Amino acid sequence: MVVTPCGFDSLFGHQIFFNGPILNFCSNCGSPVESKIPAGDHLPRFVCTSCNMVHYKNPLLVLGCVPEWQSKILLCRRAIEPRLGFWTVPAGFMENGETMQEAAARECQEEALAEVEVGSLLAVVNVTRANQVHVMFRAKLREPKFAAGLESLEVALYEEAQVPWTELAFASGEYALRQYFADRSAGREDHHFTELKSRSTL
Amino acid sequence: MVVTPCGFDSLFGHQIFFNGPILNFCSNCGSPVESKIPAGDHLPRFVCTSCNMVHYKNPLLVLGCVPEWQSKILLCRRAIEPRLGFWTVPAGFMENGETMQEAAARECQEEALAEVEVGSLLAVVNVTRANQVHVMFRAKLREPKFAAGLESLEVALYEEAQVPWTELAFASGEYALRQYFADRSAGREDHHFTELKSRSTL
Repeated sequence: MVVTPCGFDSLFGHQIFFNGPILNFCSNCGSPVESKIPAGDHLPRFVCTSCNMVHYKNPLLVLGCVPEWQSKILLCRRAIEPRLGFWTVPAGFMENGETMQEAAARECQEEALAEVEVGSLLAVVNVTRANQVHVMFRAKLREPKFAAGLESLEVALYEEAQVPWTELAFASGEYALRQYFADRSAGREDHHFTELKSRSTL
Repeated sequence: MVVTPCGFDSLFGHQIFFNGPILNFCSNCGSPVESKIPAGDHLPRFVCTSCNMVHYKNPLLVLGCVPEWQSKILLCRRAIEPRLGFWTVPAGFMENGETMQEAAARECQEEALAEVEVGSLLAVVNVTRANQVHVMFRAKLREPKFAAGLESLEVALYEEAQVPWTELAFASGEYALRQYFADRSAGREDHHFTELKSRSTL
């Protein structure tokens, strides 16, 4: 099986397969692993045939935001797969050692070279089919300065009526944007939960 | 370094060290890994010296809830380390394929053998020192039926005034409980963010 590393910040960058990294060998001792239910557990896990270390797989967090500047919102056109050429809110995998809000701001800096003040919680999208949870915040651009980061072809501000809905990269981002505009019209800042079950709706 | 597997559902069950599972060998091909910054990345990662697979480490989600029954809340006394003998809200690592709400309900079923209806978002605790995010919901017991699960010594309903604050297992649970009671007194259901930086405040 050939593994092609993707862009480090791609939504698939380290989740080439939906079930997480390939697990053939124990990361502790290098021996083969087998799938079995450990004593006291209730689900099959990958367990080392030599040192018995249990290797768990758990959902990954993807953090993003909807950055606003004077009623317009900032979108990035993806320079990497998946969904190369499609538009997205700035978002990517949360790193160790940072808070959700710090992750959302960092992703905006990396993908749009833009500084934001992260605001209220906007959306939590349980992407169960991909074993991910996408968390989106509202954000304000600190100044109207932005440009394409390494993973973006272009970055642009859009009025609500100009959002390229049919060219959005991911369903979670579309969900966040629709809730964002609906709440803004209603003068509120709620948070919203949803679940995306099918692989095509990542 | 000796690795002792903990209870499968322990907050440390598969995160024996705060930085995640031990990574000496590539889980794809079994060759040794080395720490270096991959091309296009900005952080050091564990990279296989043979197949070049990049092994990322990312924050884990811990899901829990504050279950209520007629003004009392349900707590579990831990039967496993860490913090064996101390009290906690039902909580544990989120599994692949479930939503946050499903994870919170499952943990309550496993630790307190209790069925709950998961309600509004209560607290998001960025436990940056442990590379975890703890997410707590409000919940209602469907009926006053509960008992100690495998990981609990006992399970009990507490009035607010009787909560054993000095015998709570984890700071994130204490934070959730304090916000819960404050909001309940004020007749609101807000959500609250905080960060726990120091290892002693997990």
